[in-house]
Parts: sequence; C-alpha cells; structure tokens
Amino acid sequence: MKFCSTCGQSVELTTPAGDHLPRHVCSACGTVHYHNPKVIVGCVPEWEDGRVLMCKRAIEPRLGLWTFPAGFMEMGETSGEGAARETMEETGASVEIGDLFAVINVPYVSQIYMLHRGRMTSARHHPTPESSETVLMHEHEIPWEKIAFPTVYHGLKFFFEDRKRGVKDFHSLDLNFRRKTAQRSDAGLEGLVNDSA
Amino acid sequence: MKFCSTCGQSVELTTPAGDHLPRHVCSACGTVHYHNPKVIVGCVPEWEDGRVLMCKRAIEPRLGLWTFPAGFMEMGETSGEGAARETMEETGASVEIGDLFAVINVPYVSQIYMLHRGRMTSARHHPTPESSETVLMHEHEIPWEKIAFPTVYHGLKFFFEDRKRGVKDFHSLDLNFRRKTAQRSDAGLEGLVNDSA
Repeated sequence: MKFCSTCGQSVELTTPAGDHLPRHVCSACGTVHYHNPKVIVGCVPEWEDGRVLMCKRAIEPRLGLWTFPAGFMEMGETSGEGAARETMEETGASVEIGDLFAVINVPYVSQIYMLHRGRMTSARHHPTPESSETVLMHEHEIPWEKIAFPTVYHGLKFFFEDRKRGVKDFHSLDLNFRRKTAQRSDAGLEGLVNDSA
Repeated sequence: MKFCSTCGQSVELTTPAGDHLPRHVCSACGTVHYHNPKVIVGCVPEWEDGRVLMCKRAIEPRLGLWTFPAGFMEMGETSGEGAARETMEETGASVEIGDLFAVINVPYVSQIYMLHRGRMTSARHHPTPESSETVLMHEHEIPWEKIAFPTVYHGLKFFFEDRKRGVKDFHSLDLNFRRKTAQRSDAGLEGLVNDSA
C-alpha cells in the first residue's frame, strides 16, 4: 500500500498512538488502514455413492494440482454459503452444505481455512474457468502426491478418517511451518506432514 | 474506497472479466481491490476457582457493556495467538490458550468470531485503555442483560453449558439477523435469542 484509498495522498508506515503495530496511516487525512488475515471457505462435496468431488486447478497458484472446491470468503456471506458458492463456481455442482468440520490456521500466509462437509444434490459437475477437470473420486483414487495445498491434504484426511470411524468430528489445526522449497516442488506427503509439526 | 492504494488514481466499481461481483478497479493501473470478511479472535479466560475474566468496554462500540477479551485478528498470527494477545491487551492477563470451542458467522457485518478456551496462568489482571473494569466472575455473576455483542452472549452460553456437562464440545452458529433497533438498546436476552433464529 502506497496511497490512501480514502483521499489518494501518500501513506506512511507508523504506529498510531495507543496501537501496538505499525499501520499504513495517511499523511493527509489521517486515516489508518488495517490489513487482516483472509478466510478461505471450502467444501468436500460427497456424492451418494461415497465419492467426493475433486478439481484440477486451471489457475495459479498450484496449476495442475488437485483440490476440493475452496476460495476466498466474500463480504456478507457465511462460511457455509461461501463454500457452496465456491463449489458452484469451480465445479458447476450444487451442494447442500453440512457442518464445519475443520478450521486450519496458516499464519505464514495470514489465512484461515474453514472447511464444511457437503452433499451433492445432483450428479452434475463440469470443468470451469478455474478447474480443468472435475472428477468424482473414491478415497483410494485421491492423488495424495498431487494435492495443491497442505490445508487441502489435511482437510481430506480429517474427512475420510471421520467417515471411516462413522463420526462427524470437528478438527482444528495450526500449520506453523511453510514447506521447504525442495519439498514444495511435488507437494508430497513428506513435506505436508512436516507442516503439522 | 475512492482511490487506488497502489498508484493513487481513482477507482471505479465494476465487475472484472471472469468475476461474479463488482470490485473496486483502478482506472489507471488496473489493480483490482478486494474486500473480505474480518476474523475476530477471542478467549474465555478461566481462573483456577472457575471464575472467568470479563471486561467492561472503555471504547465504542458498546461502551460500558461487558465482554470477554476479543478483537481483530492480526496478520501472521493463529487464532489462538491472537486470542492470547487480545487478552493481554484488554485485561493485562496471561492465558494459556485452549481449544477452539466456537465459530460464529455474522454475515450482516462480514465478521467471523473464533473463540478459544483459556486458562489464566496467574491471578493478575487490570483495567486498560480498552477496558474500564476487569472482573473475575462466577457464572451467576455474569451480567447477561449487559453483554456487548450477541456473539459474546452465545459464546459464554456455549462455554458454561459445556463446563456444566463436563465436555469440551465445538459449536458453530450463524447469526443471520441483526437485532431490531428497539432490542439493541439493552442488548438483552430477548434480542439476542432472535439472532440465532
């Protein structure tokens, strides 16, 4: 941020009186501009035969890797509404949103993932500008070595473990360490497990 | 938002190609500025005798009403770290942060509350610029008619109900309706219950 979004003059990084962190403060009108973590809402859409809907990313970052539908939460919606919207946008699938089953903090990118269970209301799904492929997969078909983000990896593990045990638990997790560069190249299991250390 | 924070020129509200919502887009450099919901992190700090630490708000909004420590999550922290930081800032108390026990969506103000259990590591607490009083309270001493926000009301109810049942459950709640003006004047039980309708 270089300019004040209220008046267009330049901002400087300074700690306002009574505050504890440097903020972007307008040198002309005095407006303090805060920056806050972003919420990513997602859904594991389940079809009636137990398969879940996965998407191959058609956009960066992590183009070509796999995820369930997820994206930035918008103003004025709940996490469940956002998860259903993202599912429709990324896969063309309608879901009935279920419970929030995981919250994952990712402080190194200032993000929080909020993941819901979801039940597909029809078998309809298709590629979209954000997904080059959309595929219903059994658990053994999940491409664990080609998952786009550690949050998605852990979310899927929570989902399938709960289902195997016949429970609907809630899981929270802090991913405090970014994967090392060498490990990030394949998004493989080894690097991902380190994230939860 | 009237001006681009990247180049200082004026922005216009328009829907970018491939997007589904109007965004603030810079007419000069083309930067798209997104606005997203904010996360509020909070903690119910419990002392060893079972009392919990409540604060009387010294600042607007809801000045003079009661809350547990909570505030906007900062960049680069987890929800638990943020909850501990807010507890220190608002009450001077140190807490060992426990599990995330509630997530409350408040779409009409584009906020999500993430509430943690917390254990005070000493009996120390004191008024701060944000809290005119800080008081350890038994459940029967909570001023239910003078609670600052519906999220705080529901968070406390979840906390005490769990404790009474000897469990540490997780709760999620969507507050879809803003209290009516007449009810907001006293932040009373009646208005708050309507929030969860």
